[in-house]
Amino acid sequence: MNKTAAIIGGGVIGGGWLARFLLNGWDINVYDPDPSAERKISAVLENARHALPMLYEYALPEEGRLIFCKSLKDAVKDADWVQESVPERLDVKHKVFADIQTHCRLDAVIGSSTSGFKPSELQQEALRPEQIMVTHPFNPVYLLPLIEVVPSAKTGAQYIENAKEMLTSVGLFPLHVRKEIDAHIADRFLEAVWREGLWLIKDGIATTEEIDNAIRYGFGLRWAQMGLFETYRIAGGEEGMAHFVTQFGPCLSWPWTKLMDVPELTEELTKMLADQSDAQSADKSIRELERLRDNNLIAIMRALKQQGTAAGALINAHESTFPKPMGDSAVMRSVSRSIPIDWTDYNGHMNEGRYGQIFSDAADAFMIKIGADPAYIDAGNSFFTVETTVKYIQETLAGQHVNVDSRVILSEGKKVKLFHQMQGEDGDILATCEQFMLHVNLSTRKSCPPLPEVQQRMEALVITHTEAI
Amino acid sequence: MNKTAAIIGGGVIGGGWLARFLLNGWDINVYDPDPSAERKISAVLENARHALPMLYEYALPEEGRLIFCKSLKDAVKDADWVQESVPERLDVKHKVFADIQTHCRLDAVIGSSTSGFKPSELQQEALRPEQIMVTHPFNPVYLLPLIEVVPSAKTGAQYIENAKEMLTSVGLFPLHVRKEIDAHIADRFLEAVWREGLWLIKDGIATTEEIDNAIRYGFGLRWAQMGLFETYRIAGGEEGMAHFVTQFGPCLSWPWTKLMDVPELTEELTKMLADQSDAQSADKSIRELERLRDNNLIAIMRALKQQGTAAGALINAHESTFPKPMGDSAVMRSVSRSIPIDWTDYNGHMNEGRYGQIFSDAADAFMIKIGADPAYIDAGNSFFTVETTVKYIQETLAGQHVNVDSRVILSEGKKVKLFHQMQGEDGDILATCEQFMLHVNLSTRKSCPPLPEVQQRMEALVITHTEAI
Repeated sequence: MNKTAAIIGGGVIGGGWLARFLLNGWDINVYDPDPSAERKISAVLENARHALPMLYEYALPEEGRLIFCKSLKDAVKDADWVQESVPERLDVKHKVFADIQTHCRLDAVIGSSTSGFKPSELQQEALRPEQIMVTHPFNPVYLLPLIEVVPSAKTGAQYIENAKEMLTSVGLFPLHVRKEIDAHIADRFLEAVWREGLWLIKDGIATTEEIDNAIRYGFGLRWAQMGLFETYRIAGGEEGMAHFVTQFGPCLSWPWTKLMDVPELTEELTKMLADQSDAQSADKSIRELERLRDNNLIAIMRALKQQGTAAGALINAHESTFPKPMGDSAVMRSVSRSIPIDWTDYNGHMNEGRYGQIFSDAADAFMIKIGADPAYIDAGNSFFTVETTVKYIQETLAGQHVNVDSRVILSEGKKVKLFHQMQGEDGDILATCEQFMLHVNLSTRKSCPPLPEVQQRMEALVITHTEAI
Repeated sequence: MNKTAAIIGGGVIGGGWLARFLLNGWDINVYDPDPSAERKISAVLENARHALPMLYEYALPEEGRLIFCKSLKDAVKDADWVQESVPERLDVKHKVFADIQTHCRLDAVIGSSTSGFKPSELQQEALRPEQIMVTHPFNPVYLLPLIEVVPSAKTGAQYIENAKEMLTSVGLFPLHVRKEIDAHIADRFLEAVWREGLWLIKDGIATTEEIDNAIRYGFGLRWAQMGLFETYRIAGGEEGMAHFVTQFGPCLSWPWTKLMDVPELTEELTKMLADQSDAQSADKSIRELERLRDNNLIAIMRALKQQGTAAGALINAHESTFPKPMGDSAVMRSVSRSIPIDWTDYNGHMNEGRYGQIFSDAADAFMIKIGADPAYIDAGNSFFTVETTVKYIQETLAGQHVNVDSRVILSEGKKVKLFHQMQGEDGDILATCEQFMLHVNLSTRKSCPPLPEVQQRMEALVITHTEAI
């Protein structure tokens, strides 16, 4: 049975949580008295439906069902997870938590998206403080994996474990913040940088665009994959982190930053900021900037995924839990996925070259199903592709969902021929591929028949698959 | 004639500058009295030769020549660019600048890699202060595009222009810092974050690994592509940056950071840092971490390149200045490139699917050469690939340089057949591809013969290309 999340408070953050759960197969109950909530959530959901499936080489689980509830009670009463994303006022949050705890299940996790309050503050006056923790996300919530999980001493250990497990199951990374602290962890860095940035603008040293360029052409690229300390470990060289501290420590007492002081947010400074930001980005609407950001994030995260590192390692681990495509007896469904943004040209059409890739993925999936899996390869056996013929029938678009059905049409000793057919959701054929493969002994690098088990499965399939054509 | 750079001071930073210039076709004179300089530089150069060519779909220009000089005079006397990367002591730097200016050309740019000194400090006692500026790079210098170009009021305008032009020509992004300031721009942010990080560790809130995860699974991904302000512009929504400031400004006066104070770098704190960093990363050597970082950076930057955004836009602009492959009369050289890390599997072999891509790139290059270029397509004409057959002959490895030679073997009205051959540097054939294409009118979406000019070139080539087989 699907799990259920109650989303209390829509908007960009609540909507992002909603999309993350819904697209991972959860049922959703939303409660937000704001009459524009449904419109706002639809906008976030549209972005998320475009973006999230593109991270993966497999289709996400089927979407859950989405209900806009008339009361908070209806929303929370059956929920496994209750996520609060209401305005940052403590009295408002206390009232909402009281309502939630009157109606929710005793075993539900209650998470707050707050960046401004500590869990012990949220728990004041609560019926069951042990049920409450901070689960602080980062925008766009449907793409970025980080969730700061911040319990207080009163939060129950079982609730924390349940929270971490459920977050991981929808592809998020729970960073357990072991001691509560103002602004948790990440926002403390963001505030330090934001504050220094404001001074640089106020003092006329740099514009918003120059600062953004200083970040995204330099250390931003480093931080996207290793963060701060591992990067500095490298800078310390073989002598290690202690050497780095000795070398760069002294700078800390130099008067580099103006952080001791808070720049006053005068009308003048606010206008300066807004004007510079307009000069930098006003040629694009917020909607266009969101799409640009999401496409960039997808491309970066997919690049890390292909490397199997940093955020990409998280995505691979999550993807491994997805249901794999099945097919019927006559064919095997080897691929079921959406076409990601990095596979398409500037017109949004799938690049010719990526057809080769999807059919190569299809062959890999096929081989695993008949037993020529990683263990088979580790034991020194493999199929090498000798020749591939692709026929391009219809154009395929970014974001389009496609399926590949695969057949084995020849199996004679060391020789195998696969035939793949790529279809859209309506069953229209988009492309086909015939692959001629030879079975190879990886030690001798010479061709030879497959091991008997694989050979037998292959031969049995030839009969089913060729009869069905 | 090649330009010449004098690298004064080797090490990781000097070596990074050296590699960036050398791999972009500059001649290099190094001067560093340290007997281990040659070994250190070789290590950086080996990393750079692995990494930098992978950013591009075309081969870099031919490497310049590299000379280790016996004296500073020999190194600087013919140089267009003199890069100082000696230890961060002002008296040492003043002495080095005096030596440089005694022997260098009057029109040479003299850049300093300093992060600790302002250009006006470097210029004290200088013979020709107008020649001196800060050109502050980021590690790894052979991959990250950012260079902070910081002149003082005394630096000559022509020198600044020349510096920016030469930096751009080797694929770097000169960020002109208009007013000198301690630590320039980026290091001020790095120091703010480093300082806050030290507090979090000292106070036992988070470990080095937890902080790195807070960065690389969250805002690090945002910053790699948009930086700080454009990200916040999106957060402000349609109401814009001024709205964001009103909404999030008040947090600034909250006691979120401990930046007003400097954590003392006691032995205890240093040990805590080093121990945590060991726990996080000691399973990998510095060399392995460097490779991991570089592979991640290449993958991220290539992803942005494919999107044409952020650092990827810089790489595309730089790449467009590369010499294009030519070929002789009998064939066309359509591709000349190295195999990047994101094209290979975990064994370092080129993925089957990427053969489709390289031959699709080959067809694009071929078409441009015979006049079926973007203008031709914009005018409503194009070749659509109908069928492709790839033969896989030998394995291809990450980092390997390959060439593709292309022939047209059939041109009959709307029908065209291309034949591509991919070779290693030794001429060994790695794979071949036959592409069957139809010429299409993009308005009617129906096939039709190419425009006469293209048709004639194609037919003439069929004769040369089939005779040569």
